[in-house]
Amino acid sequence: MSTEVRTQQPLYLGIDGGGSKCRVVLMTADNQLLGEGLSGPANPLRGMQLVTESILDATGQALADAGLPRSTMAKLVVGAGLAGVNLPEYFQIFSAWQHPFASLHLTSDLHIACIGAHQGQDGAVLICGTGSCGLAAVNGRLLEVGGHGFPYGDNGSGAWFGLQLLQQVLCSKDQLIAPTLLTEMLQIELQSNDTLQLASHFMNASPTEYARLAPLVFTAAEQGDVVARQIVEQGAGHINAIAERLLTIQPAALCLIGGLAYKVEPYLAPAVRQLVVPPSQPPEYGAVWFARQASASAVETGTTE
Amino acid sequence: MSTEVRTQQPLYLGIDGGGSKCRVVLMTADNQLLGEGLSGPANPLRGMQLVTESILDATGQALADAGLPRSTMAKLVVGAGLAGVNLPEYFQIFSAWQHPFASLHLTSDLHIACIGAHQGQDGAVLICGTGSCGLAAVNGRLLEVGGHGFPYGDNGSGAWFGLQLLQQVLCSKDQLIAPTLLTEMLQIELQSNDTLQLASHFMNASPTEYARLAPLVFTAAEQGDVVARQIVEQGAGHINAIAERLLTIQPAALCLIGGLAYKVEPYLAPAVRQLVVPPSQPPEYGAVWFARQASASAVETGTTE
Repeated sequence: MSTEVRTQQPLYLGIDGGGSKCRVVLMTADNQLLGEGLSGPANPLRGMQLVTESILDATGQALADAGLPRSTMAKLVVGAGLAGVNLPEYFQIFSAWQHPFASLHLTSDLHIACIGAHQGQDGAVLICGTGSCGLAAVNGRLLEVGGHGFPYGDNGSGAWFGLQLLQQVLCSKDQLIAPTLLTEMLQIELQSNDTLQLASHFMNASPTEYARLAPLVFTAAEQGDVVARQIVEQGAGHINAIAERLLTIQPAALCLIGGLAYKVEPYLAPAVRQLVVPPSQPPEYGAVWFARQASASAVETGTTE
Repeated sequence: MSTEVRTQQPLYLGIDGGGSKCRVVLMTADNQLLGEGLSGPANPLRGMQLVTESILDATGQALADAGLPRSTMAKLVVGAGLAGVNLPEYFQIFSAWQHPFASLHLTSDLHIACIGAHQGQDGAVLICGTGSCGLAAVNGRLLEVGGHGFPYGDNGSGAWFGLQLLQQVLCSKDQLIAPTLLTEMLQIELQSNDTLQLASHFMNASPTEYARLAPLVFTAAEQGDVVARQIVEQGAGHINAIAERLLTIQPAALCLIGGLAYKVEPYLAPAVRQLVVPPSQPPEYGAVWFARQASASAVETGTTE
């Protein structure tokens, strides 16, 4: 297919904008992948300039990848799933963006993850990565659970696991509790056995920095560390509670997504585990589905584009 | 006593530099209060310029209060207890300050609190305010416990209580647990029953903002709320663990300091409570004691002034 023919058809851009990366895919109306792009953070919480730069950068890459001129941007029907836009103020800030696209349809990163995971069908997703949250979509109803942010929300997430680990280790360094394997592992990981250095390492640390410690908890638990095992059970309990809440609206299937998902899965309740299926497509493909659905319904409902 | 006579004697300035306020007292060699000053944050973690401005501002006030010219600064023997200087990097940064005093003797805010509380005698202090930490000073030995920062340290502190409250309430709003009195109280406090608003209120919140919620937990516990009671018992358990660790070096007395101290005290173990005495003098007076002791020993040990 030549570039000239391609640009006659509607073109869809799907954006998965997270706290650390922005992934986009460029697709035809009949679901053919034309190009891809990857750039930096695209979470409105990090500031609008950074986000829009990330989005435009990744979009430029995808157009170049497809052999299309940058001017094609004005013809793109765009679906964007962005972390943070579940907060009304960020949704508003972002909605006011003077974007260069034909239209921009905005939803949460969680929603596009669910749409992608179930190929546009109803279902539920539970993300257990740096953060934790879940969404179920059944018969037009969306139920979103958790994902309120660290440290007050995101229970059972990687950041949560890292925080529990650090709290325990600092208590052991102060001799308030007995040291366990966790103390030894953290000291090796951070190459320090000095309490003040361990603590100051995490002063103003991001959730991502806490989440990097999470695998240590699972490793220690597997090696029989009792404190680590307690943390794992408590964390998995949080994730299980989110899953059980999602199941109240009876999704047919549940996808677990995120770096810790496969570590937490064995600890979930049987009723939850029996609904687990592997995700079908990544979130940026879900964003394309969303753009297609939203632009179709926008004609009827008069949504601002 | 005239100003001329006063300035012939050594003059001591005691500084209590915390995260939100800087208090100073100006005293004679024979412990007479000449002047006082109060200014903004004096925690090196907030940046050196802000800290030094706060210190010089409060010092200027104390000199004016005493009817002494600003040039007297060059004659002051200064003791400063600053939050954060227990971290070596901040101790070094602060030690390098080209201060305008005759000499500056630096230690932690916790240390001067202990010296002041026990009027220069051995003893222990346990701070339970926005943060939590303890220090025991016995026969020249200093044992410092906790105070590593929020959210990974400062267990049982006001910030910790506020965080537990918020975590519970967000879980109840997500229908992961049943709502309790805490949910109702937080919604009234923040004038919102919207989950996203409650969560976004605490995005990037300071420990102080979390600590403001702490009294709600105690109020709910007193009214019989089971979840609140569990949080209080867990928090008091953390404070009790710090106290029991301090008692291992056998201080003769323990002072509880900070806005939550009197709320936590009833929940502490009998062995801890029987050592509790009211603090004798505030931290800035302890800083004067420290300056006096340190300047006396500096002559012998050759400490840089």
